[in-house]
Amino acid sequence: MPEDSKHILSSFEADLARLRDMIAAMGGLVETELADAVTALLTHDSAIAARVVEMDAKVDADERAIEQFAVRVLALRQPVADDLRQVVAALKVTTDIERIGDYAANVAKRTLVLNQAGSTWPLASLSQMARLVQESLKSTIDAIGEADPVKAISVWRADQMIDDLYTTIFRELITYMMEDPRNITACTHLLFIAKNLERIGDHATNIAELTYYAATGQTLPDARPKGDLSASPGAGAAS
Amino acid sequence: MPEDSKHILSSFEADLARLRDMIAAMGGLVETELADAVTALLTHDSAIAARVVEMDAKVDADERAIEQFAVRVLALRQPVADDLRQVVAALKVTTDIERIGDYAANVAKRTLVLNQAGSTWPLASLSQMARLVQESLKSTIDAIGEADPVKAISVWRADQMIDDLYTTIFRELITYMMEDPRNITACTHLLFIAKNLERIGDHATNIAELTYYAATGQTLPDARPKGDLSASPGAGAAS
Repeated sequence: MPEDSKHILSSFEADLARLRDMIAAMGGLVETELADAVTALLTHDSAIAARVVEMDAKVDADERAIEQFAVRVLALRQPVADDLRQVVAALKVTTDIERIGDYAANVAKRTLVLNQAGSTWPLASLSQMARLVQESLKSTIDAIGEADPVKAISVWRADQMIDDLYTTIFRELITYMMEDPRNITACTHLLFIAKNLERIGDHATNIAELTYYAATGQTLPDARPKGDLSASPGAGAAS
Repeated sequence: MPEDSKHILSSFEADLARLRDMIAAMGGLVETELADAVTALLTHDSAIAARVVEMDAKVDADERAIEQFAVRVLALRQPVADDLRQVVAALKVTTDIERIGDYAANVAKRTLVLNQAGSTWPLASLSQMARLVQESLKSTIDAIGEADPVKAISVWRADQMIDDLYTTIFRELITYMMEDPRNITACTHLLFIAKNLERIGDHATNIAELTYYAATGQTLPDARPKGDLSASPGAGAAS
């Protein structure tokens, strides 16, 4: 091929690599944000929680930087086929990563509220759910870096376990509130914290789907593990 | 300009128009989904709620169709500058519209749970909040169709009112739960319904920001009305 087109090709490869690095860095930041939010929750540490809330602005800035770079790549390199798919997926992945950051920040904000109230509450199930969500997020971010469709599918599957655990926690907290009305405010925040973790699992699943799409050009089947059983009539009646 | 480039230009304009139509149609579908979900909630109508849950699959299908078309437009027309911005914004807007559909479907699912439980609960504030969110969504969808940055900014502003109302509802429901533990399960679902409406407001705000970006090339300032005051220490201590 002519020199200049080889040059253009390699420039695009370099752009794609940079884009993947930027997203991996943003993903790593959000992984830390979530890890710190969970630590703050489980150790009642308001200082860490406050730091998480501050971190979120950096995540938003990363999102804008990645979008601007992706748009520039589209404009300058005008990729097609697989290359185009990867840039488009990158644009959408950053949206999900930013959302995950929002949910982690919300966990931290509610932790500050809970610490201020100073009440005690059950955290065992939440701690277990948080671990699953963190593993799922880590696999997702790894799958992006490695553009690994198989790893993406495993995240997609893991989300069902997270949803089931969320439903268990939902029922536990309702019971705890009924036992003693003084638990209600704290448990309500814990319910939303559990919900935030469940949503983070959903967004990790979205990212897995996008990664699978970027790597294979195929969308995963519709019957995706998704949503929240506590909102299904059966669970609702039981809870 | 040469005949063929004029031809290409007009083809792209046609593609953009079609893309805008597809998004407006998807937006209209989600507006209906939300309106029906709110009706089902306020009138305790499980039949309508069940229909909303079914509608959501159509919304997901629309999202995939729009994405596939947008990617084809990027590949075939290789737009730059403003044209490129519009296609990129379209890709991201569909993600937010799909999320709004998910939240509307969740409102419907929880309505089914509430109707099954058959308990009574206060709906006045929720009804007011739902009206605001529906207006905000309508303005957002209109802003897309008209590519109107001014309308986009108004949505961006309205979101603060929705967040404030959400905080009021949060406090009302906590009080209601404390007054009678038999209200706890129903009020918990109502809390999540209010939260879903608040999130729909956030996504309408995202769409407004994307529409503003597509129309002006500028991002709205960072200090966006966003999030949920019930998760702020002050409100939490008060609630």
